[in-house]
Amino acid sequence: MRIALDAMGGDFAPDAIVKGAIMAAREIDEATSLLLIGKEDVVNSLLKEYGYTGNKIAVVNATQVIEMGEHPTKALTHKTDSSIAIGFGLLKMQQADAFCSAGNTGAMLVGAMFSVKAIEGILRPSIANFVPKLKGGYGVILDVGANAECKPEVLEQFGELGSIYAKYVLGIDNPKVGLMNLGEEEGKGTVVVQAAYQRLKANGNINFIGNIEGRDLFNDKADVIVCDGYTGNIILKMAESLYDVLHEKGISDPFFDKFNYEAEGGSPILGVNGNVVIGHGVSSPTAVKNMVLQAQKMVSSKIWERFKKNYNE
Amino acid sequence: MRIALDAMGGDFAPDAIVKGAIMAAREIDEATSLLLIGKEDVVNSLLKEYGYTGNKIAVVNATQVIEMGEHPTKALTHKTDSSIAIGFGLLKMQQADAFCSAGNTGAMLVGAMFSVKAIEGILRPSIANFVPKLKGGYGVILDVGANAECKPEVLEQFGELGSIYAKYVLGIDNPKVGLMNLGEEEGKGTVVVQAAYQRLKANGNINFIGNIEGRDLFNDKADVIVCDGYTGNIILKMAESLYDVLHEKGISDPFFDKFNYEAEGGSPILGVNGNVVIGHGVSSPTAVKNMVLQAQKMVSSKIWERFKKNYNE
Repeated sequence: MRIALDAMGGDFAPDAIVKGAIMAAREIDEATSLLLIGKEDVVNSLLKEYGYTGNKIAVVNATQVIEMGEHPTKALTHKTDSSIAIGFGLLKMQQADAFCSAGNTGAMLVGAMFSVKAIEGILRPSIANFVPKLKGGYGVILDVGANAECKPEVLEQFGELGSIYAKYVLGIDNPKVGLMNLGEEEGKGTVVVQAAYQRLKANGNINFIGNIEGRDLFNDKADVIVCDGYTGNIILKMAESLYDVLHEKGISDPFFDKFNYEAEGGSPILGVNGNVVIGHGVSSPTAVKNMVLQAQKMVSSKIWERFKKNYNE
Repeated sequence: MRIALDAMGGDFAPDAIVKGAIMAAREIDEATSLLLIGKEDVVNSLLKEYGYTGNKIAVVNATQVIEMGEHPTKALTHKTDSSIAIGFGLLKMQQADAFCSAGNTGAMLVGAMFSVKAIEGILRPSIANFVPKLKGGYGVILDVGANAECKPEVLEQFGELGSIYAKYVLGIDNPKVGLMNLGEEEGKGTVVVQAAYQRLKANGNINFIGNIEGRDLFNDKADVIVCDGYTGNIILKMAESLYDVLHEKGISDPFFDKFNYEAEGGSPILGVNGNVVIGHGVSSPTAVKNMVLQAQKMVSSKIWERFKKNYNE
C-alpha cells in the first residue's frame, strides 16, 4: 500500500513531518511505502540531512503550500499544485491508498469533499477521534468538529459509522454505541438529541446502549460515543488541555498519557471515498509517525470500502 | 443570617447531612445559624449521636421526604410537608436567607420556580458551577443542566448573570466573559452560538472576550464561561470523573483536587428570588459543609438582590 503524507502541513513542517516520515518508514509493513508530498528540493535535502537512505519514501513534488490561516475553498481552487491538492489527486486516482496531513483542517475537509467526495448515502462525513478507556484500548467519538450542528438522522448515522469503525479498525466485537447527553434517562436533552435517541434505539444494525453522560467517556459503558461536532470538539480539546496540564506538572500515567494527541497522531475523516487522516497543527515527528500508522490500519481494514458497502448494498 | 439545609436530601442523608451541618456550624460566622429541615426525631437523635450541643443549629420538622427518583412537580404538589417544600416555604417567607439541598435536583429547580420564582426580566434561571483556574481561584460556568437548549438571548443573559456573580461572589474585578465554542473565530459554531456571539459582543454591561474553546476552560482567558446546559453538564461531569480517576490512581494535586465536587459543595441556581444551592446526590459531610459556606457567601454578597436590581432599575 501507498500512504501519501503532506510534507508541508503543520506548524513545524516540513522538518517535523520529514522526521516523522523517517520514523514511520522504520515501522510500517514491508509492503507499505510513503509518498512524501512537498517542495522536492526542500524535502529531499531534509531527508538527506536526517540521514535517510532507505527505499520506503518517495518524494512527490508540489510547488505550492496552503498555509494554516488560508480560506480552504479559495486556497484549494487557486493552489492546484499545493501539497494538499496533489495529495487528494493521488487519493482520487488511487495512486495512494490514504492521505495524511497536519495542515489546514478546513482545506483537508473541503479537499476530501471535492476530490474523493462523500460516500453515496452518507449524509455528512464526520471527523472522529479516540477516547482512551480505563480498561485499556480506545473508544471512538464522533463528530469532533466537522459538523457543529447535526440533525437526528446525521447523529444516527454517526452511530453506524462509529460502530463499523470500532469493529474493523479498533477490533471491538459488537461495539456499544452511546449517545452523549446530560442525563441517562430516555427523554433527556435537546429536541435533536431526543429524536436521535429514538432513531438510534430503532436502528437494528447497531448495539445502542442509550444515553451516556460526561462522566462515562472513559469507562466501559460505550465504545462509540455519538455527539454533534460542537460538543465533541469541546470534549476533545478539554481532554487535550488536561493532558498538557498533567504533563507540565510532571504527572505521568499510562491512562492519561493517551490524552496526548500524539498517541494516535490524527483524526480520521469517516464517510468519504478514501482514507484521510487530519493531524494536529502542532504535530511532532512522533505524532506524524502515529498518524501514518493509523492510516495504515485504516487501509488494512478496508474501512472506507466497508462504509461504502454498508450504504450501497 | 439563617441558612436552611435539607437534612433528608442526598444518597447519604440524613447521616451525611447532619454531620455536614455540624461541621458547618463550627465554621459559619457568629451571626449565622442553620435551620436543619427533616424528620424531627431522626435529626435530633443524629445531632445527639454525633455529640452536637451548640446553639447554631435549629431543627425544623418536615414529615415527608421527596426521593431522588420522584417526578419533581408531582412530588412537590403531593408532598407539601416534605423537607424541600418546607425549605422553599421558609425561603419565600424570608424566614431563611438561603436554602441548600443535595436532594432531587429537579424538585429543587421546580421548587425554586414555583416558590420564590424567577426574577422579573430573567428569561431562564440557570444552574452555575465552578471551574478551577490554573492561576488559582475559580471561574464560573453556566448553564450546567437547567436548560438543555438555550436561545441566543438566554445565553446573553447567562453572560450577564455570570458576570455579576463573578464580580460580587468570586470577587473578580471586570470579569472576562467567554462563549464556549469549537473555534476562536467569530462566525464559528452553531447558528444559536453565532447569534449569541453577536448579542454578547454588543452588550455594553459585560466584558465579552469572544469565543473560547475546550482547552481554555482552566486558563486565564475567561472568568465566566457561557454555554447551554447540555454542553455545561457534559463538561462538568467529565471534569468530575477525571478527578475520580486521578483520586483512584492516588494522584493528588492542588489544582486537580478542585475538580472534586466537594470543594465547592454545590451548584447555585442563578436568577431566582432567593439564594438556592443544589448539592451533588452523593454529597459527603465535607461537601455539605462547603455547600453551606457557599450559601453564606451568596447571602453576604446579596447576590440575588443584585440580579434583581440589575433587571429592574
